[in-house]
This record gives sequence, structure tokens and C-alpha cells, in this order.
Amino acid sequence: MKTQYRTMGIDDAPFKFRDRNVSVVGAVVRGNSYLEGVLKTEVMVDGRNANKKLSGMINNSRFREQIKVVMIDGAALGGFNVVDIGKLYKDTGVPVITITRNKPDYTKIKSALRKHFKDWERRYEIITKNEIFRIKTKHNPIHVGLAGITLNKAETIIRQTTLRGALPETVRIAHLIATGITKGESYGKA
Amino acid sequence: MKTQYRTMGIDDAPFKFRDRNVSVVGAVVRGNSYLEGVLKTEVMVDGRNANKKLSGMINNSRFREQIKVVMIDGAALGGFNVVDIGKLYKDTGVPVITITRNKPDYTKIKSALRKHFKDWERRYEIITKNEIFRIKTKHNPIHVGLAGITLNKAETIIRQTTLRGALPETVRIAHLIATGITKGESYGKA
Repeated sequence: MKTQYRTMGIDDAPFKFRDRNVSVVGAVVRGNSYLEGVLKTEVMVDGRNANKKLSGMINNSRFREQIKVVMIDGAALGGFNVVDIGKLYKDTGVPVITITRNKPDYTKIKSALRKHFKDWERRYEIITKNEIFRIKTKHNPIHVGLAGITLNKAETIIRQTTLRGALPETVRIAHLIATGITKGESYGKA
Repeated sequence: MKTQYRTMGIDDAPFKFRDRNVSVVGAVVRGNSYLEGVLKTEVMVDGRNANKKLSGMINNSRFREQIKVVMIDGAALGGFNVVDIGKLYKDTGVPVITITRNKPDYTKIKSALRKHFKDWERRYEIITKNEIFRIKTKHNPIHVGLAGITLNKAETIIRQTTLRGALPETVRIAHLIATGITKGESYGKA
């Protein structure tokens, strides 16, 4: 059966810590390959507005009603602008999956947050409140956080929307666009 | 036979005439659907640097050796920043196809150039020096200008790299990215 539902992948662009804002790109893909839409917003580097910006981007999109799930590359954008995916799901009605290649190292994250942020406890709480699940792929395993969706369904969607490598096409494409528009040419792995 | 060669589609972003520069996006697609790279440059609105910027973007790309053809949405970028495709082909070694939905109206173009540019004759000469061919598609016909490639080969490539509608995927995707990153959400037809 050919998969024809739409997913939105989200990734942030490369940035320097002296930058105030960083571009965040959303890619809407039908099935496992057909790019239908490109969205862009900006979030503050190490800021606190990721949720507001993402829910705005999703809710204002003409694709909102059609998106089965949003997949975010990572649990934070622009450094430690952490995404509360439970709240994002609540605010948009669209289930959310965060995807990382490596299992988050909470000890390291905690120590980095403590060092840099007065409100480190709040950020740490958001980052750690969702259970992280390990999903096998044909390549390396990936690690996901979930809101509004079961692990079983998330696994199915990730499998159906991944064409090559370990990451769903939406996430791979969002990464290509975010790096390309910022650096002049896309590079690296999502 | 599955088409696996790479093409690069190029489109400019929407702009206002008071803008100094406009974003120009290159999309590298393998076969008729797999996005492999995203490139970006900027050209001056109504400027004269389109050739220099495009050849720089193409020659600096790690995909240059692999690109069979570059397909540009239109014969000029950022208004009347006209592209000399013969020169672009000479400077990059990559054949070039310009694609427009409508047949260019040279009377209208001439009168617009005369009105706005001191160097209108030079721009008009560049725009008109390539013969324009009409190509039938499953949808509406398109009009192409060619450099470094025969009409026959251009027709084959356009047919093989078009998935839906009248335009090759590279051009469609470059358009989605260029409008999306500028306006917040992609829209309209390439």
C-alpha cells in the first residue's frame, strides 16, 4: 500500500551563539517523498519561544488539517530553546514526535543548563518529562519522544516515511533546506 | 528505466521592488523526486549580477560534476536581472534550460526595459538571443531556451524529471523553497 498521508518535519538551521535568532524550517511531505510545502519561522537562540513559534507556524499553515504528525529533529531548537511537545500537541491538535540519533545524555544536559540558565530547572523539566523510546531502523537506531501518539503508531509512521537512511524524509528534507538557505549549500546529516 | 541522473532547478523568491536583493534557490534532485541538495544565493533586484551569482553557486557546489543540466524558472531573476545562459553554460560547463509557462512577449518586455533601464538594449539582446521552443507536456505546454543542449535532449530530460504537472521536480521544489523561506509558507505555481 502506498503511503499518501502528510507529515511535517522540522529542523533548525546552523547558528552561532552570538546570533539572536535562528531559522527553523518545516517541510510538508506526502507519502515518503513528495514535497508539498515549505514553511519557515525563527526562534531565539537559547530563548524560550520555540513552542509559540512552532504552534504559530503549524496553526497558520494551510496544511494543518492534513498533517498526521509533526516530527522534530531534536528536543530543542536554537540551542536550548526547549520544545514542550505535550503543549505543542495541545495547542495544534497535531501529534508530535521528536527524533534524535543519540540517546539524550541527561547528566550532560543538566550540567550545561545549570551553567548557562537561571531558569535551568524549568528547561530541564520540559526536556525530561517525556519518556524516550529507542526505535530500530534498517540503519542505526533512533530515539523518539512522543506526544499525542502511541509508540506503535509512531514506529509505523517512521517506517513508512523513511526512504533511505534512518530518518523520515520530512526531517531529512527540513535539514537540507535549513542548512542550505543559511550556509549557501546544504550539508551534513539531520 | 529509472532515471537517476541529477538536475538542478533554480528559482528566485518573491520580492518587492524596493528590496535591494532577492534570494535565489537551487534544488538538486536525483531522478524525478529525491532531493539531495539545497543551495542559496542572492541577486540584486533589477541588477546585472545574475550570471556571476549563478555561476558562483554552481561552480562552488559539490554537485557540479554530477549535474546533467540546470533548469531556471524564467529567463531573468529578481525582475530584469537577465541571465545570459550561453555564458552560464560556458562558465560552468553545465547545460542550461530556461523554462517559462507562457511564451515571452518580446514587445512588452522591450517596452518595459526601455522605460526602466538605460542599458535596456544590452538586456534586451541577452533576453532575445536564444531561440524559444515550445514543448508539449501532459498538461499545458512550456517554453524553453537552451544552451549547451539540443532540443531533443532537453525534451527527454524534462519528460523524465517531471512527476506531476508541467514542470520538472527541481524547478517545482526550488519554487516551494524560495517562496517558503521568504514568505513563511510556500505558495503558488513555479
